[in-house]
Amino acid sequence: MTFDDILQKKKQGAALSREEIRFFVRRLVEEQIPDYKTAAFLMAVCFVGMTAEETFYLTDEMAKSGDALDLSAFGDLSADKHSTGGVGDKTTLIVAPIAAAAGCKIAKMSGRGLGDTGGTIDKLESIPSFCVTLSEDRFFAQVQQIGIAVVGQSGELAPADKKLYALRDVTCTVDSLPLIASSIMSKKLAAGAHNIVLDVKYGSGAFMKTPADAAALAEAMLDIGRRKGRRMAAVISDMNTPLGRCVGNALEVREAMQVLKGETDGGALREVSLTLAGAMIALTFQLPFAEGFDRAQQLLENGKALQKFTEWIGAQGGDAAVADHPDRLPLSPCALTLTAPQDGYLSAIDAGCAGRIAKLLGAGRQNKGDAIDYGAGLEFLHTVGDFVKQGEPVVRLYTKSEDLRSLLGDLTANLLWFSDKKPQAQKPIVQILGV
Amino acid sequence: MTFDDILQKKKQGAALSREEIRFFVRRLVEEQIPDYKTAAFLMAVCFVGMTAEETFYLTDEMAKSGDALDLSAFGDLSADKHSTGGVGDKTTLIVAPIAAAAGCKIAKMSGRGLGDTGGTIDKLESIPSFCVTLSEDRFFAQVQQIGIAVVGQSGELAPADKKLYALRDVTCTVDSLPLIASSIMSKKLAAGAHNIVLDVKYGSGAFMKTPADAAALAEAMLDIGRRKGRRMAAVISDMNTPLGRCVGNALEVREAMQVLKGETDGGALREVSLTLAGAMIALTFQLPFAEGFDRAQQLLENGKALQKFTEWIGAQGGDAAVADHPDRLPLSPCALTLTAPQDGYLSAIDAGCAGRIAKLLGAGRQNKGDAIDYGAGLEFLHTVGDFVKQGEPVVRLYTKSEDLRSLLGDLTANLLWFSDKKPQAQKPIVQILGV
Repeated sequence: MTFDDILQKKKQGAALSREEIRFFVRRLVEEQIPDYKTAAFLMAVCFVGMTAEETFYLTDEMAKSGDALDLSAFGDLSADKHSTGGVGDKTTLIVAPIAAAAGCKIAKMSGRGLGDTGGTIDKLESIPSFCVTLSEDRFFAQVQQIGIAVVGQSGELAPADKKLYALRDVTCTVDSLPLIASSIMSKKLAAGAHNIVLDVKYGSGAFMKTPADAAALAEAMLDIGRRKGRRMAAVISDMNTPLGRCVGNALEVREAMQVLKGETDGGALREVSLTLAGAMIALTFQLPFAEGFDRAQQLLENGKALQKFTEWIGAQGGDAAVADHPDRLPLSPCALTLTAPQDGYLSAIDAGCAGRIAKLLGAGRQNKGDAIDYGAGLEFLHTVGDFVKQGEPVVRLYTKSEDLRSLLGDLTANLLWFSDKKPQAQKPIVQILGV
Repeated sequence: MTFDDILQKKKQGAALSREEIRFFVRRLVEEQIPDYKTAAFLMAVCFVGMTAEETFYLTDEMAKSGDALDLSAFGDLSADKHSTGGVGDKTTLIVAPIAAAAGCKIAKMSGRGLGDTGGTIDKLESIPSFCVTLSEDRFFAQVQQIGIAVVGQSGELAPADKKLYALRDVTCTVDSLPLIASSIMSKKLAAGAHNIVLDVKYGSGAFMKTPADAAALAEAMLDIGRRKGRRMAAVISDMNTPLGRCVGNALEVREAMQVLKGETDGGALREVSLTLAGAMIALTFQLPFAEGFDRAQQLLENGKALQKFTEWIGAQGGDAAVADHPDRLPLSPCALTLTAPQDGYLSAIDAGCAGRIAKLLGAGRQNKGDAIDYGAGLEFLHTVGDFVKQGEPVVRLYTKSEDLRSLLGDLTANLLWFSDKKPQAQKPIVQILGV
């Protein structure tokens, strides 16, 4: 077998065997395949696709290509969630405590964000003295004891995916459904959880533009997980608008705590979080979704989820008093307030645009290893559908950066959209699959 | 403009503009595009193709990417032929003298063969003391004076094509019609001739497997040349069987001289050579093809072509007496004679197999720069359709190599095919385009 045979076979539209895909992934990790051959292969996959079997083989071989977390100590209680990425998405900070309060075991390794805003690990690090590195023993002990531990990724999960992704990114071959599904799921399989809930976003701030595309991706990922014996569910949620009122690390921790404390109606953020937690509980304890959702709602409303959150923060060395004293979280100076240019309804907040602004304010990284300004970000004072008067503040921008105007350029011009008519309400969740 | 934009556009199936293709080719030659991006682009072209305009732009930009031969001194008399490559194809040695005898100006730069057998330059070098390097002045003077000069390539014609071809070869992206057509024609355009005749082969020993595929490639190349104002014609010829009775450098020179001297009926070799020469004469002097063919035939039969051949060999320092004394050409020892295993008709000689054997005997190069055994090769004593008796010699293998058996392995088993019934005669030429 040579990689050229495999490339030729794929180009001709045939399905590859498990052995062929194993050969490819192993040689890839051993750096035995020149990048130009892999790039040609990826482009061929964009055109001819992959069958469900091939996609599973690719995922499974990539998952086995590096370190893996063995969560068998938690039996079938281990649970994980994955979001395909959105702006203002702080649901892990709410879902994990609810699910842990219900008895799920959340043993989570999380990467640092390289998107427009920080990842979960970055958000957690905005909490004073929170520690994202734990020894393996302590990590497992903490999950056993309180039901949650979230640490930065150590070792290397699915290095084959890392290589492939780096090449896809520079060869216009990102947008292939089997490649996206296998990339995400290879890391999820290696991360070891028995119950996996996927939050698949669609809209202007997401990679998938329509609910139908998002659902197709979700179905492909559910299929992969199930072939590996995992329990799988997926939620298809809106990312035309940022999720919640805040975008930026400490700002998002603050907002998550408000939801946990019941201080806000929470809107879409609360609904998406409860749905994800409900699906996770339903999967883990093999309940109907409605029952899982009810349990999640109870645990949120009776304060058990908040209690689990503070336990968790405390267990990882963080300042657990932040829940009562959110002013202990960093907040950069408010450098700019955008106001309504006229009376009217706020008809849209462009999620993609909000993400790019957050990054420029310092909330995300331009390059791997860049420092983050944890106190930077955007705070929306209104949500889509609100009526605002001319001159009324709509969004505050926080940053340490001094040269804000030249940083942002015209970017803010596309952030907010107004209309004379009240816009139709968008449902934050359009579909729930697998539970 | 970035190459990523161009790659994305091509992937989505759109046609690239002249400016985009120019940008690509220039960056390619400047080594500003990583191979993996170019490989992804080539694979996308395999799937979405290129329009006739795009193919022309690519060809023209590649032709302009390096040195070019200016043959304007010969007005509209300069003529060139190109074969897509076949086994035993020594037609240039016959066509060039005929066409020059008719008044065409053959100022030809030719590459060394990297295929199974040597290229025209290698064949010429098998003639004792023949010199394939001439100063520019002498080159032009010789063409002016006797109508032919053939030299090894100096400078670099179409370096962009060289880069692309090297990458296509290792990424399974050779078999794209616009890429094949632009690769061949970029070098032909840079080689400067006003009249160009293409010999497009099909069959087991050729890249194109069917007459229809060969004709499609020919049409694409005719279109490119005409867009550049060149006069174009093409001949679609059979390459299921080696052309002529000999494969190997000096053996082929000997056979070409036999055709020029009228010592053999010549069969397919004579017919293909006359057709190519006829098309070249018809193009150059704007005659109907039949008239061009008749002139070619006269010049062959009245000895003018042979006379031109000896003039040419002498002008380039070669031993012009070889025509009368073919034993002055090198001939390696006959190491093996294959005989008919049974009474029957010789039904097929596998051209691809003959090429591989010739290479192993020493007639071709394994790697660039390898030395060639000019006296090595195959001589067929029968042609397809002949009735042979069991034990009768059918082919002689000449080589200096001592360990012939282990070299060839089972390869000779697939060279000759026999049958009880007389096989249907195959026409050596199925189509003539453009004249």
